[in-house]
Amino acid sequence: MAKFDSIAIIGVGLIGGSIGLTLRERNLVREVVGIGRRKHRLEVAQRAGAIDRGTTDLASGVAKSQLVVVCTPVELVADYVAQAAAACPMNAVITDAGSTKVAIVSAVDTVLAGRREGPRFIGSHPIAGDHRTGTEHARASLFEGRTVVVTPTDATPAGTLEQITHFWESLGARVTAMSAAEHDAALAATSHLPHLVAAALAAATPRELLPLTAGGWRDTTRVAGGDPQLWRPIFATNRSQVLSAIEQFEASLSALRNALEAKDDGQFEQLLLEAKRTRDALGD
Amino acid sequence: MAKFDSIAIIGVGLIGGSIGLTLRERNLVREVVGIGRRKHRLEVAQRAGAIDRGTTDLASGVAKSQLVVVCTPVELVADYVAQAAAACPMNAVITDAGSTKVAIVSAVDTVLAGRREGPRFIGSHPIAGDHRTGTEHARASLFEGRTVVVTPTDATPAGTLEQITHFWESLGARVTAMSAAEHDAALAATSHLPHLVAAALAAATPRELLPLTAGGWRDTTRVAGGDPQLWRPIFATNRSQVLSAIEQFEASLSALRNALEAKDDGQFEQLLLEAKRTRDALGD
Repeated sequence: MAKFDSIAIIGVGLIGGSIGLTLRERNLVREVVGIGRRKHRLEVAQRAGAIDRGTTDLASGVAKSQLVVVCTPVELVADYVAQAAAACPMNAVITDAGSTKVAIVSAVDTVLAGRREGPRFIGSHPIAGDHRTGTEHARASLFEGRTVVVTPTDATPAGTLEQITHFWESLGARVTAMSAAEHDAALAATSHLPHLVAAALAAATPRELLPLTAGGWRDTTRVAGGDPQLWRPIFATNRSQVLSAIEQFEASLSALRNALEAKDDGQFEQLLLEAKRTRDALGD
Repeated sequence: MAKFDSIAIIGVGLIGGSIGLTLRERNLVREVVGIGRRKHRLEVAQRAGAIDRGTTDLASGVAKSQLVVVCTPVELVADYVAQAAAACPMNAVITDAGSTKVAIVSAVDTVLAGRREGPRFIGSHPIAGDHRTGTEHARASLFEGRTVVVTPTDATPAGTLEQITHFWESLGARVTAMSAAEHDAALAATSHLPHLVAAALAAATPRELLPLTAGGWRDTTRVAGGDPQLWRPIFATNRSQVLSAIEQFEASLSALRNALEAKDDGQFEQLLLEAKRTRDALGD
């Protein structure tokens, strides 16, 4: 890609830290600036090799960056994009890594509305999370072979889409463009619903039965260990799509339950087989 | 433990093969006899070091065994126990590894009813599966630190319970005794429900969205890749307990859905937190 000279990362946790690590390990940029609220976290990120320098002053941090990546929890993204847009170079590109896109993209649209000049924003979502969070789990391999969804709008210049596509590809990811609404509907099914189902399963299990669990329970509930404070705003900004995904899930669960209840074991096995085919299509 | 001279394993797949491997690696027995329907599978098990010799003739295979372990799919267990009881030494102990216990224990009770002499049966369930099956995934570490439930009845002599407890402990497992009914109710929640939920989630996911899945979907659906033919009889022999477990799950899911729908994000986060606490109590 056209090498960026300076990239600013706002929020140096798992995603932001991994972006920095990859950029620096691959020597893709002269300088990675980490921006955060807590000095201590920035020092940890710097020691880990994720950033060249850190600052708690957003405006000075983005002042010379051609690219700003906002990697904060979703509810903070739009505000940081606005702050960055007010302080970064006029020709800069701003993107984010939030797990929902409609709320962010429309909030940013409102803030930047009507401007024909100045920094451009395009939404991104690297689908490469982990139930663990924080810089200490960041790794340069996080994006390798993973999908990043970018969500251009009618107002996004082709050049901006191209730049951001190259950026994520340079980190090892595959890039798919779709609308923010398409993204949120898809992720409701592929990420938010699994989280909810895992949580419901964990919550439905009496604690005293844990010694009688094996790999099945362990795998099926793993993401329920994620941070509720991070997940709350993800669900809050994708409410109706998640509710639709729950309906789909409940229809599938009802089909299985009905077959079991009706002692229609042939139908029950057939439903398990169809589920297995979808699961097997993904691989282990 | 009082070392067994000869142990027969009926069914040399993942569980049976792993029992054989562990017995032989730990030098716990003079001879492990593998019994199966297909000569080829027995040869594979022998080459893998899981058995000393194999035979398709059950009666001759168990003729000199002090312990017979039936490791077939659940729907075949009771019949094999009956065949083994008719052919093994009078002082032998027979156990199994089936995932449900009420159906097996009561079927065996019926067959062996009224006998005051002869081989003793006690149900076992090593909670140490894998979504992959077959001898090729067998390993000597499979039972290390895992729980094995044994299900003695009022008719089980104390000496038999002790023998079988020592047997599983010698393979590295922890042994817990409970009634077959308690076992089935617990496993409905800890194993059968997770399987059903994983299958429903996989089935509810449009195939074209698989590229937009990440670790969450992957983990939450993993067990849905299990063999439907093996799982069908597990569910069929634990129908009412599984239906109760589904009710528990649906109550938990409804609580989350209602909070989401009502935009009560505080309550929603609290429910996620309670689920996380149960999940975290298990560890990664």
